[in-house]
Amino acid sequence: MSELRKDPVIDRWVIIAKERGKRPSDFAGSQDAHVAAFCPFCPGNEDVVPPEVLAYRDPDSQPNGPGWRLRVVPNKFPALRDEGRITKHGECIYDKMSGIGIHEVIIETPDHGLSLATMEPRGVEDVVWAYRDRLTAIAKDGRFNSVIIFKNQGQAAGATLDHSHSQLIALPIIPSQLKDELIGARRYFDFKERCVYCDIVDQELRHQERLVGENQDFIAVCPYAPRFPFEVWIIPKNHGAVFQETSKFGLENFAMMLSETLKRLAEVLEDPPYNFVLHTAPLHQDVGRFYHWHLEIMPKLTRVAGFEWGSGFFINPTPPEEAAKYLREARIATEEEPSRSG
Amino acid sequence: MSELRKDPVIDRWVIIAKERGKRPSDFAGSQDAHVAAFCPFCPGNEDVVPPEVLAYRDPDSQPNGPGWRLRVVPNKFPALRDEGRITKHGECIYDKMSGIGIHEVIIETPDHGLSLATMEPRGVEDVVWAYRDRLTAIAKDGRFNSVIIFKNQGQAAGATLDHSHSQLIALPIIPSQLKDELIGARRYFDFKERCVYCDIVDQELRHQERLVGENQDFIAVCPYAPRFPFEVWIIPKNHGAVFQETSKFGLENFAMMLSETLKRLAEVLEDPPYNFVLHTAPLHQDVGRFYHWHLEIMPKLTRVAGFEWGSGFFINPTPPEEAAKYLREARIATEEEPSRSG
Repeated sequence: MSELRKDPVIDRWVIIAKERGKRPSDFAGSQDAHVAAFCPFCPGNEDVVPPEVLAYRDPDSQPNGPGWRLRVVPNKFPALRDEGRITKHGECIYDKMSGIGIHEVIIETPDHGLSLATMEPRGVEDVVWAYRDRLTAIAKDGRFNSVIIFKNQGQAAGATLDHSHSQLIALPIIPSQLKDELIGARRYFDFKERCVYCDIVDQELRHQERLVGENQDFIAVCPYAPRFPFEVWIIPKNHGAVFQETSKFGLENFAMMLSETLKRLAEVLEDPPYNFVLHTAPLHQDVGRFYHWHLEIMPKLTRVAGFEWGSGFFINPTPPEEAAKYLREARIATEEEPSRSG
Repeated sequence: MSELRKDPVIDRWVIIAKERGKRPSDFAGSQDAHVAAFCPFCPGNEDVVPPEVLAYRDPDSQPNGPGWRLRVVPNKFPALRDEGRITKHGECIYDKMSGIGIHEVIIETPDHGLSLATMEPRGVEDVVWAYRDRLTAIAKDGRFNSVIIFKNQGQAAGATLDHSHSQLIALPIIPSQLKDELIGARRYFDFKERCVYCDIVDQELRHQERLVGENQDFIAVCPYAPRFPFEVWIIPKNHGAVFQETSKFGLENFAMMLSETLKRLAEVLEDPPYNFVLHTAPLHQDVGRFYHWHLEIMPKLTRVAGFEWGSGFFINPTPPEEAAKYLREARIATEEEPSRSG
């Protein structure tokens, strides 16, 4: 059983794997680990992973068999397990919690050779629908306070399997970055009586210099103070704190903007490794007035991770205005006429 | 001129390099960059780097020539420059500051083949004395509010030069992690009227299970809620917020504990890449009652950096109790009888 532990000084929780801790020898050469030849996510290998919790599949196909466009399965080696109740304990000055949670894998396509950047926009739509379906289902479970949906693309970004997939982790706590966003957004709201993200959207649309793309419902933008070169955020134009409350039409436009943005990154940076994280409201909390969901894409271009880990302070060698210009001018094929020149 | 920019939601500043932004092609293959053959830090090459600001050298040697044991020089490609006054500006809803700062390199030894883990403890003493001397000097400059001293050891940890060195960055702001620590430590102090780090030292000495090493003035300990496998903190036993106020005898014991701990990590993990960051009080602020300086060592064993970047939430596959046991039992050569068995 894993354990959630809280740093005694900073409001930061970590998951400590207890079941089979990694020993020193387990780390040898892991930085250059090669991806295995056998793919547990390919059609025909469905029995290698735990039974699906969601699948978009042909009406006449069988669960946990071939015939699917997308599957969601529990992670075979979960960081947290969905077993039992959440219990909190003290350990003298320290705080811990049982490692209850959900850890799932969204297998985004049956085609081993495709990625979110190369698949049809229809495929990306399936992916964001799966995010919505799973978020909606998990939000009903009173034990969890937040859900993180994220993607590690490429080995340098932490992916251990090539086959295109994202992950979902439901947590009994709210991770520190989301908490910081909630605090900051609330403080801004208390002062201005406006959503800070709505103000960001307004300003970016007016100035254009950091804009990467735009459609009816979304902007893609290099944020004003990015931690990483070519970091891009996708932000809904209309206020909304809860991703899973996005309308069908909104989700379609989100999928289109995500697809387009990943194509731009792939074109400009030659298929970079990247992480993205969906930032959406915590469960069971009314943050609707001041929070605003969005997606943050972080290309992994440099071996940064130097003192940044320890200081929370980042040095970014590429101004977002320059990154945005490269991305905006990328020549990509989109379904409709791009909303901006290039 | 670089620029400091603040995230509009989170209280997080980043340095944006403006002088010559890195273009997409600059990142190609950078993950596997090889270290150059020519070493600008080796004796004889002193003229390749800017003139030294501090050196420990033979009395009859010349500044910026050979004959030194340790040199501190300005970074040739600084993230910030020590030119002019600090000016703050708004950019509609955004905040920025001129990129004034100090960025120095501590060349820890003239011997290209040595590391902090392999050099004589006397050499490590020079290094921590240099930290103290530079901190003391920079603290007199009213423009700066914090100094981060850190080390990137090994390419995977962000080092671009093999020759053993640390870095120092003086900032007009307080980085977010230090700010979080100050807030957390103050909150604990307000509640308990005790320093949280003093309580951590007490508890770790009593329980022993996370203890890695101990001498008269310091403990080395795997923290209760570590972000990374085999993370180790070195904490002074006696309360003190300001690193540069450590006594001569205290510094000697710090150097010994640092040397010993790095030897343990090198032995158990086969010379792992790592980062360390010195956490010391901000300048010109009285945090002496509740803050407590320490050093955090973070081995870089996994390609984590997945969703951790975006969530502030970490999954650690090695319980600190197990890591501490391995490190404690490592067979290393120390100058004096180790204080614990093994």
